[in-house]
Amino acid sequence: MTIADRWLLPDGIDEVLPAAAQQVERLRRELLDLYSSWGYELVIPPHIEYLESLQAGAGHDLDLQTFKVVDQLTGRMMGLRADTTPSVARIDAHTLRREGPVRLCYCGSVFHTKASASSASRSPIQLGAELYGHAGFESDVEVISLMLTTLKHVGQQQINVDIGHAGIFRGLMRESGLDADQQERLFDALQRKANPEVQALVAEGVNDPAIAEMLCLLPHLNGDISILADAGKRLAGAPADVRAALVLLEQIAAGVQQAFPEVSLYFDLSELSGYNYNYHTGVVFAAYLPGSGQAIAKGGRYDGIGAAFGRARPATGFSTDLKLLLGLMVQETAPRSAIFAPQGASAELVQGLRAQGERVIYELPGQSQGAAELGCNRRLVETAGGWQIEPVEQ
Amino acid sequence: MTIADRWLLPDGIDEVLPAAAQQVERLRRELLDLYSSWGYELVIPPHIEYLESLQAGAGHDLDLQTFKVVDQLTGRMMGLRADTTPSVARIDAHTLRREGPVRLCYCGSVFHTKASASSASRSPIQLGAELYGHAGFESDVEVISLMLTTLKHVGQQQINVDIGHAGIFRGLMRESGLDADQQERLFDALQRKANPEVQALVAEGVNDPAIAEMLCLLPHLNGDISILADAGKRLAGAPADVRAALVLLEQIAAGVQQAFPEVSLYFDLSELSGYNYNYHTGVVFAAYLPGSGQAIAKGGRYDGIGAAFGRARPATGFSTDLKLLLGLMVQETAPRSAIFAPQGASAELVQGLRAQGERVIYELPGQSQGAAELGCNRRLVETAGGWQIEPVEQ
Repeated sequence: MTIADRWLLPDGIDEVLPAAAQQVERLRRELLDLYSSWGYELVIPPHIEYLESLQAGAGHDLDLQTFKVVDQLTGRMMGLRADTTPSVARIDAHTLRREGPVRLCYCGSVFHTKASASSASRSPIQLGAELYGHAGFESDVEVISLMLTTLKHVGQQQINVDIGHAGIFRGLMRESGLDADQQERLFDALQRKANPEVQALVAEGVNDPAIAEMLCLLPHLNGDISILADAGKRLAGAPADVRAALVLLEQIAAGVQQAFPEVSLYFDLSELSGYNYNYHTGVVFAAYLPGSGQAIAKGGRYDGIGAAFGRARPATGFSTDLKLLLGLMVQETAPRSAIFAPQGASAELVQGLRAQGERVIYELPGQSQGAAELGCNRRLVETAGGWQIEPVEQ
Repeated sequence: MTIADRWLLPDGIDEVLPAAAQQVERLRRELLDLYSSWGYELVIPPHIEYLESLQAGAGHDLDLQTFKVVDQLTGRMMGLRADTTPSVARIDAHTLRREGPVRLCYCGSVFHTKASASSASRSPIQLGAELYGHAGFESDVEVISLMLTTLKHVGQQQINVDIGHAGIFRGLMRESGLDADQQERLFDALQRKANPEVQALVAEGVNDPAIAEMLCLLPHLNGDISILADAGKRLAGAPADVRAALVLLEQIAAGVQQAFPEVSLYFDLSELSGYNYNYHTGVVFAAYLPGSGQAIAKGGRYDGIGAAFGRARPATGFSTDLKLLLGLMVQETAPRSAIFAPQGASAELVQGLRAQGERVIYELPGQSQGAAELGCNRRLVETAGGWQIEPVEQ
């Protein structure tokens, strides 16, 4: 084994070095404090759980993404969390068991066997917030607003939000008469906006001509807010829950635009790719920045997930990647502020300075690196009048 | 599969709920800020690495503790870190490549296949600091002092530190003429202080009578600082590095007692259990609290570890478990300070309060829980004179 074998990191796995780590830590604190100021309480879910818990209600996509290990104590399979949401839902549904709205947030690494299309990383630091126990559009508006506030915090002004609703496709599917396999193929074709394929699949399997027409229309129903009124007319014959979903999107759009008039909203009633089709049940949304096809944050409503833990609770939330957010920020390269304490410097003095928030670095005997090489901009110097702090020539 | 199957957490794996998570987060910030004030720079090593990197210089004990997964991209084995030190050593030796003293700290989860004897947890939040690039006792004193300052920060006054030195046993072993298997059996017997067994193994394999006598003496060389002078006499015929180790322990003890006269030091020249025999090369130390046989923090010198990454560097450091530290603190149950904002409350007002550091929680339509049930001690009330903040009857 060569030395290179030992230090090469796996693809998509990274280490964060001092300057960047300090920025990650600062941003982490700022955003968790922001979420706290909105009433979101921090939880720290485990990194490893039994597979059944991790995959409850989440399904196949997450399964493929999950690293698996055997629990040597029980012989059962455990998984590294690929997404924090199922664990937080378990905490809400099973552990906390509170009634009414519960707001939770989290920040920690998740692990993917393969990098997802939306990120080159296999170990993002997932940061997110979830609102449980309220089914109305107001809680969707709240989490979207918190997502947008997060992006504004890292200096983003031009934000585009794509909005869809998992219930529209689901509602039409239910009435389509298609079997599970056909539904999956149609879902796949819709995500690729492969219209001839959509038409062929619909013609082949959907008997109700009104439903067939609406399914074929779906890939065309995208654009700005005006598309919702248009969709309202063209899907007038759709099941009640599909029509209710359109009304809900109008309410969410109004709520978000009132608080964030400068954010541009884009609606796509067939777009569900990148969301978890297995657990999203209501609105789904993703934030994009100019010049990037990769969502910087996304989320949605997933009312069913708690049922796997004994208590179905309405749930809506979003998540993002702290390391991606940091990459968006203008990196300040503030000089490191530290005081060099030569050998023999008064221990009480050093302790006092540290207690005041100063960074004080001791000289070690025999070291050839001086104050400047250790990144110190000041040094302790013994004078006739006692120890003084003097600037260091950089 | 029953619902209980889905929410049961694996043994030794825990979730941290809101009140405790807030305390974990606060303590994390305070201690990382403390380490920063001493000049220790934060790094965030990966949770997953190739096995070769994780185990470089660390050996068999860590191997058994490490969860392993296959990298689907390369087919190579990866491991979840069971200890953060090898990764930080790699960062120092290979990535940073600085000359002279480098001070690094870290805080993050590690994963153990089985709970170690010293902790019931299989996923401690490991918090630690490492000082690279300096071989003198002063850096050992510095990291022990930082460990003690950490324990004082969490309110501990009565601290016992056990101190040993891996070089004493190693030096005698080298001269013993024992083969690897015999050495391992002798090490094991010494750890159990099984004196008849030690004597039998020594009588069987060690030809040099002076070395044999000193090996049999080792289990008896423990006690307060006076044992070092005693050992100096009784090991006067030992190899030079063994005698140098005794001098070093005197210097470290003097340095630590000067800064922490109230801490009691206990020396045990054969005790190496619980340390990593495979990588510790110099002083080893562990801090104990009254009434607990489990070390609350421990560390030592491991000068060889960087060699596996192409650059052997002197290294000394300590680590502890943030969750164990938190368990030691008197838990303040400060009432949650938050303001309840009823529907219709001015968004600007809410935003302004949050910017001032207040926690403001919106009422959601239809929720039956009032301000007090959401943990709010104040509420926004609309009066003729505008919105006012009023106290909530608890």
